[in-house]
Parts: sequence; C-alpha cells; structure tokens
Amino acid sequence: MRTHYCGDINETLIDQTVTFCGWVHRRRDHGGVIFLDVRDREGLVQVVFDPDTVDAFNTADSVRSEFVVQITGRVRGRPEGTTNDNMKTGKIEVLGKEINVVNKAATPPFPLDGYTDVGEDIRLKYRYMDMRRPEMQEKLRFRSKVTSHVRRYLEDNGFLDIETPILTRATPEGARDYLVPSRTHEGSFFALPQSPQLFKQLLMVSGFDRYYQIAKCFRDEDLRADRQPEFTQIDIEASFIDEEQIMALTQGMISEIFEKELNVQLGEFPRMPYSEAMQKYGSDKPDLRIPLQLVDVAEFLQDIEFKVFAGPAKDPKGRVAALRVPGGAEISRKQIDDYTKFVGIYGAKGLAWIKVNEIEKGVEGLQSPIIKFIGDDNTMSIMNKLGAENGDIIFFGADKEVIVNEALGALRCKLGEDLNLYTCDWAPLWVVDFPMFEETKDGGITAIHHPFTAPSCSPEELKAEPTTALSRAYDMVLNGCELGGGSIRIHEQSMQETVFDVLGISEEEQQEKFGFLLDALKYGAPVHGGLAFGLDRLVMLLTGANSIREVIAFPKTQSAACVMTEAPGQVGNAQLRELHIKLREKPKAES
Amino acid sequence: MRTHYCGDINETLIDQTVTFCGWVHRRRDHGGVIFLDVRDREGLVQVVFDPDTVDAFNTADSVRSEFVVQITGRVRGRPEGTTNDNMKTGKIEVLGKEINVVNKAATPPFPLDGYTDVGEDIRLKYRYMDMRRPEMQEKLRFRSKVTSHVRRYLEDNGFLDIETPILTRATPEGARDYLVPSRTHEGSFFALPQSPQLFKQLLMVSGFDRYYQIAKCFRDEDLRADRQPEFTQIDIEASFIDEEQIMALTQGMISEIFEKELNVQLGEFPRMPYSEAMQKYGSDKPDLRIPLQLVDVAEFLQDIEFKVFAGPAKDPKGRVAALRVPGGAEISRKQIDDYTKFVGIYGAKGLAWIKVNEIEKGVEGLQSPIIKFIGDDNTMSIMNKLGAENGDIIFFGADKEVIVNEALGALRCKLGEDLNLYTCDWAPLWVVDFPMFEETKDGGITAIHHPFTAPSCSPEELKAEPTTALSRAYDMVLNGCELGGGSIRIHEQSMQETVFDVLGISEEEQQEKFGFLLDALKYGAPVHGGLAFGLDRLVMLLTGANSIREVIAFPKTQSAACVMTEAPGQVGNAQLRELHIKLREKPKAES
Repeated sequence: MRTHYCGDINETLIDQTVTFCGWVHRRRDHGGVIFLDVRDREGLVQVVFDPDTVDAFNTADSVRSEFVVQITGRVRGRPEGTTNDNMKTGKIEVLGKEINVVNKAATPPFPLDGYTDVGEDIRLKYRYMDMRRPEMQEKLRFRSKVTSHVRRYLEDNGFLDIETPILTRATPEGARDYLVPSRTHEGSFFALPQSPQLFKQLLMVSGFDRYYQIAKCFRDEDLRADRQPEFTQIDIEASFIDEEQIMALTQGMISEIFEKELNVQLGEFPRMPYSEAMQKYGSDKPDLRIPLQLVDVAEFLQDIEFKVFAGPAKDPKGRVAALRVPGGAEISRKQIDDYTKFVGIYGAKGLAWIKVNEIEKGVEGLQSPIIKFIGDDNTMSIMNKLGAENGDIIFFGADKEVIVNEALGALRCKLGEDLNLYTCDWAPLWVVDFPMFEETKDGGITAIHHPFTAPSCSPEELKAEPTTALSRAYDMVLNGCELGGGSIRIHEQSMQETVFDVLGISEEEQQEKFGFLLDALKYGAPVHGGLAFGLDRLVMLLTGANSIREVIAFPKTQSAACVMTEAPGQVGNAQLRELHIKLREKPKAES
Repeated sequence: MRTHYCGDINETLIDQTVTFCGWVHRRRDHGGVIFLDVRDREGLVQVVFDPDTVDAFNTADSVRSEFVVQITGRVRGRPEGTTNDNMKTGKIEVLGKEINVVNKAATPPFPLDGYTDVGEDIRLKYRYMDMRRPEMQEKLRFRSKVTSHVRRYLEDNGFLDIETPILTRATPEGARDYLVPSRTHEGSFFALPQSPQLFKQLLMVSGFDRYYQIAKCFRDEDLRADRQPEFTQIDIEASFIDEEQIMALTQGMISEIFEKELNVQLGEFPRMPYSEAMQKYGSDKPDLRIPLQLVDVAEFLQDIEFKVFAGPAKDPKGRVAALRVPGGAEISRKQIDDYTKFVGIYGAKGLAWIKVNEIEKGVEGLQSPIIKFIGDDNTMSIMNKLGAENGDIIFFGADKEVIVNEALGALRCKLGEDLNLYTCDWAPLWVVDFPMFEETKDGGITAIHHPFTAPSCSPEELKAEPTTALSRAYDMVLNGCELGGGSIRIHEQSMQETVFDVLGISEEEQQEKFGFLLDALKYGAPVHGGLAFGLDRLVMLLTGANSIREVIAFPKTQSAACVMTEAPGQVGNAQLRELHIKLREKPKAES
C-alpha cells in the first residue's frame, strides 16, 4: 500500500513518485490550495493538492483531522523560504496526485496537535489516541530499543532467555500477592510472581549457567506515583561468578545503552559502602549529581543544655547532622518554612538553620535563631568543620538516625532540584556492603534484600551478630534512583537454614514455604548470583519521563484500574461457582 | 572461578593449564587412578587424578555424583585407543592438579546418567534435576535460540516489541478465563489475557505500524496432551499491509529459523484453500508429508440399496469418501479391527475396506466384505476413479461430512505414521480462504477464527449469506500441526458491527464487551492484520519433543498444578477477606 513511510520522504526522492499512508495531522486551505500534513510513525510529510487535480483536490478538501489516507504524489523541493529545518522532511513537499480515504475519523476526544494539559484520565481512556502523539511514540519506541539492546548484549554474553511461570506459588518478597483461584483444585490459589527469584536460582541449580528474562512481575500494593500493579524486570542470574563479575557485566550493559542511545559515556561506576551512603547522603540511593553532603556534628552538641540537639547527640540511635548549602543564604524565610514542612513529611520535628553572611566576623556574621542554644564556641567549631563560607545556609537535623537520614536526605535532593545544583547529567554508582538485616519497628529482624542473599561472613558469625553482618548485595543507583539490585545468593543448604533461623522462620514454615528450594540446595547448587533491573524506571529515566505510566503502553491508574477496557470488571456467578469462590457479603450496617 | 567451560576444552589447549567448574557426572576408580567426568552446560570433560597428587587425589576419590567441583589441571591428549569421537572433548583429558568441592550433593532422586523411563511426576517434582540432563538443556537452549532469531528477524523488519497487560479484562476468545480478584475494586475481577488480540489492534490504531511481542497467554481449559494453562505466543501485527505481505514476512521468519538452526531449506510454502484441505485431507491442517488423499465416491453410491452408503451419499450434509493406501493390502484383519476402533473415536460407526489383490481380474481380484452391497459395477467405477493398484487397501468413510472428515483425516495421519509413508521431513503450507463462520451444534453461528477477522466480501454480502462468506484469514501448517494463524482484521466500525450482528451479539453486549474497540475503530483505524504463532509447539516440532512440557522449563501437570512448588496452594482467610471473596462451602450431602 506504500513505497515509503511519510517521515522517510526526503530530498533524495525529488522528482520521484511516492505512495504513503498515514493520518491527517493538519489540514490547511491556503490560497485555494489544500495542504495536508500526513503522519505515520516515522514522522510528518507535507502534501499539496492543487485545484487542477479535480478529484484528488476535492477528496483532500473533504478530509479532516485523523482521517486515514493513502496518497500518491511527486516529491518536489519546497519553494525558497518555506523549508523547515526542524522537520526531517522539511526540505520537500509532495504534490498530491491521488488520495484515497482508507478510513474516516470522528473528531478526536482531545487535540493531538498542540497537546498540552489534557487530564491523564482522558488520555488513559483514549490511550490509543494518546499514543498517536509523537512524544508517546518516541518513548515506546525507545523502550523497544532498550529491550533490544539488553537482549542482544546478554545473548552475546552467553545468557539464555528462559521463561518462568506466571501462575505460581505465593512468593516470599513480602509484598501482597495477586491471587488466581484454581478451578481444578478446589479452594486453592495460584499467585502471580513478585519476581522470578526462586525460579532463576533453580535454573542455576539445573546448570543453565547464565539466565536472563525480561519478566512481568506483580505486586498488589497501594500505588505510589512510581508503581504499577504489573511491572517489568530485566532479570539476570549467573553461576560460578562473584560480585565483581556480575557488576562489571551489568555495568557494561547499562553503559552500552547510554552510549548507543544517548551518546553518553558513563565511565567507571564508583562504589560506595551502604554506611558511607547513609552517612554522607542519608540515603542508600544517593543522587551524586548534587554536591551537598551531610556532616555529623553531634560531637559539639552532646554537652549543651538544649535537649533538641543534645538528646539525639547522646543517643546511640540518634544523629545530629548538618547540610551546608553554598549560595543558600539567599533562601527566604517563606522558603525555609516550606522546607520545614517538607522535612516534616519524613518525621522531622523542625528544621534549624544558620545563614553565613560574614564568616570573618565570627558568630556576629551569622544569622540564626539557634546560635543562642548552641553557644558561640560550638557554633564556630561546627562552621569550621563544615568549611562554611559566606553565602551558605546550613540546615540541621537532630532526631533518631533514621529520621535525620530520611529528612535531610530528601531535603538534599529537593535543594538540588530547586537551586539547580546538579554538577552533571548522569551520576551512576554501585552501593555495596549492605547489612544483611534491619530491625523492624516491632523489634524483630527482617532481610534488607531477601532471605536468599549470601552474607559475607560464616553461618556462625551470622548467628552470633546478625545485625552487624554484611551481605554480598549490590544496588546500581542512577541520579538518586535504584535502577537495579542483586546479590550473590546462598548456595549451601545449611547457610540458607541459618538465615531462615535468624529471621525466626520455624522449621515447619521453612519446609512449607521453601521446601523445594532447600531440597534443590541439597542436590548440588553452584555458586551463583544475579541482579534485576526495573525496566520501566530505567526507560523513564532515559527518556526523561515524569512517570512510569508514560513509558508503558497500557498502564493502570493509581487505583489499579484500566479506564480504557474498564478492567477489573464484574463476573457472573456461574463463573465464580466454577472457581469455588463467592463474593463476600458486605457487613450489614449496625442497628 | 574458571578459565573455560568444560565442554569447550579441546585439543587446541593441550599442555595448557585450565580451570573449570561443574557437576561430577561420573566417577570411576580405574587401576588406582580416579576418573571424573565433569559436566557443565557446554558438555563433559574427562579428568584424571593420579595418586601422586595426594590432596587432590583424596578429594577426587571422595566426591560423588552431582557434587559441584572446581578443578585446575593440565590438558593432554588422550592415550591412543581411548579417544572418543562422540564427544566434543573426546580427544583430550585433563590431568587434575587441584580440586575444590564447591558444594556437596545428596544422592539424586533419579539417575541423570542413563536416564530412561523415570515417571514424569518425579521428573517434574525435581525439575531442577531433570533439567540437568543434556536433552533438556539442549531443548531449552534451542528455545532460547528460536526466540532470539524471531526477535532479531522482526526487529530487523521494523517491528517494535511492545508489552501489553497481563491484568486485563475478560477477552473474547471463547475459552475460560483465569480470574484475579481486585482488592481495590470490591467485587471486580481482572482476567488474564487469552491473547493480546485487542491490544495489538489498538496499537495499530495508535500508529505503531509494526508490533510484535513474545507474549504469555492463559486459558483455563481442561488440559489435553498438548495444552498448558499458560503458553507463549509470538504475536505479530502490522498496518497498511495485505495478506500476501504478512504471509511472506512470517514465512521468511520461520524459514530462517529452519535454515539457521536445522540447516533445512523449506522453500516456498504452497497455498491451499480450506475447502480443498477438507476435501483432500479431511483437515484444515493437513500433514502433506503423507501422500494419501481422500476421494469423494458418493456419485457411485447414491442409488444403491445399502443405506450405510446411500444415505450419506444422498444427504447434502453427508459425505462418502475413500482413502487408497498403496501397500496396505498387507494390513491384517486384527489391524483393520484396531483402525475401526480408532475411527470410532471420531464418531465413525464402522470402517469399510477393499483389498486390491489382482485388479486385472476385476472384482474377482478384490477382497472385501462390502462389494456385495455396493455392486460389481459401482465397485469397479470406484477402483477406476481411485486408480487402484495391486497391493492397495481402500478404506471408506460414509457419514455426516464432519465425521467422515475427522475420521478419515485422522486415519490418514495414523496410517502415515504406522506405515511410515512420509515422503519428506518437513511439509509446510498455508491454508487460506477459510469460511467466516461455522454452524454450532445448536444451530447458531460462530466465528471460525475470531470476530475481528475481516471478510473478503462487503457487509451487505456478509449479512445476506453469512455461512458461505469467506474470511481473509490464513493458517501456517507444518507436518499436520497449526504453527500459527492470523488474518487481516476489520478496520471499519460498520463492518465490525455487522459481524457482531451476524453473530447475534446484541448492541448492548457489543458496547459492554467491545465498546473500546468500536470506539477505536471510529477514530481512524488503519488497514491492519497479523498473526500469532504458538512458540511452545514450534519449538516442540523443531526439537522433535513429544510434548510441549519438554520445551517449557517449569510446566504444569495435566491437572494444572506445579508439583515442584506445590502450586496452587492454600491461602489464609485474611488474604481472601482483603480480596472481598470467600470459599464457597461444599454443598451438604442430601439427607
């Protein structure tokens, strides 16, 4: 039906006859001549219909936006002064000879051309129209290119694409599972996988050596801005390797995508231990584009009377930290109030600050409501440690360590954005040396990654001091986002049982939930490890999209619904009966 | 941890020191020397430990089958007379210097070496062990290579890999859906997709022009030998194309896989109209490796008294057909009885036959219980039409057309297998010109493909004579299996409504089930069409596997369960309560 894509018609085709198909993007009647911009996935081409081609002119005159047309015409250079350097096809136009209306179109529910602020609900309801916009086309094409690079890179490195089940058993990632009632096994349910973790480990036990899969994963969580009920993971596992090899391999993969698609050289990714990341950036996924760092100042504040500082400074689980912001003395009181509210989201009870106006004058040159509580000498000691300079503002956090880290860590990123402090476009790094476990709010213990992560110590040491044990996990972080994470896994049954024991999982529960894994480790599991990347987030970062919904063809809303297909939907009783379930009746109103 | 894969160590490495990892496949103590065959995914290598390397010898002596080991040694040529030409590594062995036990292994639940007839249930329970067998490794590696070829071929042809949702709305394919209760939308359910059909059509409406996806699909059907609850489809759709282009493109894809992986040239695929396939082969997926054909013989049998033949011969919905089998006169009475039972499965009430001993003697030279009912002249006319030769057997089917086609069609394939009549290894073809609809048993009408298939006539013609209308569908058939099927789709809303009308779908139901599709067709849908291949079946055929379970890493049993993970499993009440469902109580026994 065509000789060329619209977007591929250019000056090399001048004087040739071409046929193309596409959508009428714009129609103008200009001096008795009809101009159509016709669009396909490769771009737009301008077509001119003169009144002397009577039939074609009349048809061209009758078409409207989004009509589907097939056009034959002769390519010619645009008259001088009318070329458009912003368009691939901007040097030429097509003199239309024949036009055939393939399909008519009703008036679009929102304008595709000049689209600005149509509500997301309308865009999602008419997603097939929204995706006609060149921005959406570009994002999904980019996604396709990324997956293609990933696959080729991994295949060229000996990885096998192996599919794991979607209908499976409840997985141990800890989030809520989506369930699927079984028809053939009354009262039983499949779970949709939160990740292929155990299956990929079993593939290593099977000896496939190098596995990958671009895998759908499912979590029935309340959706935050950046979550979807189903998401896509680049899932990787390899045998007889250590963390250095898997990090080098996956760093190479991401670097290649940046190089080929964005022409960006990421260079060698720095490594940072978890403890350093928390101390300097208050986060295990620090945004290294921002030059600000948290500095501990508890040493100067333990003995003052002011409890707000002295309390956390003396508390082994407390932290007092300062964040020096060059140029921040410009920040207004109003803005400081806004930042105080912002850190409140993370549980901080306030946001102390000092502006540095004339440091050469000592405390006289500082401006702050808190110096009187800290004392002049302590204040200057702090200024000295921070290397304060005129024009700085210094923010303080003093609370439980976790609150200070979250509050100042988030404030650091917000300041970086608000004041545009970025020193580069892309700042990747590896965060390593994570603890194995963290304490839960109820005083228990939970795995920071997952319970299949290998510790970097012996089972005996792990048992003796679980909270200080480090794991062999690694996270790849880019611009403050966790792109992917992984670890060397436990390959010995006894170590796996030790970890389950430390986590307080009874032997019975171990057998019930993970019996097949423990069995598999018994029959000769190789040393193995891997990594999983969030594809949606990776593509979002690479394309500069605001949300992963922008890089998913048919995403769900924040209430986990598809407004286009109206899923989820009602189901008849007969179907539920076959599945041996029924709807729970709503509790009656209390009388 | 290694310098080479086991299977890659060969005579080019003689006198070099290598390190490799793998599983102890076999251990022999031979004249005071320990021989280990060590296995990884690339193959086996033989390692020799002499007693003079005391530590290594003792460790090698202590290992057992399936222990995971890391070995360093020097490569040397095998002594004359001990080389093994069947092994990639058969010209060399490694003189072991160091051996490190990476992991011990309990005695395997079944022997991997010399595996013959372990029950499938045990193999599935210990799937991670089963997949260590070289046959399983080979099949899953082959599958990975096939998907890689498919992806590269399609990407090189401009197709974009776009993911469609797994949590979606009940799809119209007609099989039973798997359902997923929604937590956030009380009383509502997602369905897992039976195929991405509507989504891929919407992607065409969006202008992506060329889409593909290797997509998981789900059907909650009672499982036959060749079905799985979840299966994988190579899903393809393109815009502004006709059936010739899509057939050429996908034929090229399949041919390339055969060429690159099996070194087989498939050549141009013949085309056969559905009507011819049914008439000559009794099947819409004829196995053209078998030279037998059904021949209509009703013309000779309409006026005889023998009702078994005369009835169907006169019935417009009946058929009387003969199948001439060269060399079949050898078939024994016992075998004929077995074939009679076999066609009984398909509803045939008997299996008449004539053996051709000496055709030059006329009916005297024939042997059959039925000639007396047919009459001598009619018999000879039939022999003449069939071109009967000495040594033939001729089987007859006389019944409703659908029964004759199914029974003789299946018998034809069985005879092909039993008598090894195959004339070639691979016989691909396209079946085309399918009817749009077929009659259901209750006298209704149903779509042969799906209701989005474009007819090859106008809406008016379709309405007037739906049962004779042909569709623009095409199936790719190989060796009697449907590899894939597709069609040009309906792109005009009015035609889509006409098809729904003919199918007796009320306007209300059209809106409720397909409202978003009808909407989308209204806003400018391009001409489009596509195809879907069953990946599992394609790989099964290519690898010569007996079942699709052999080419799926973690398949389900015939009762739709995973015996390894014990899925589906029980779920707590709290979880069901969150999903607003409960288990249906079993009906009480009647008193």
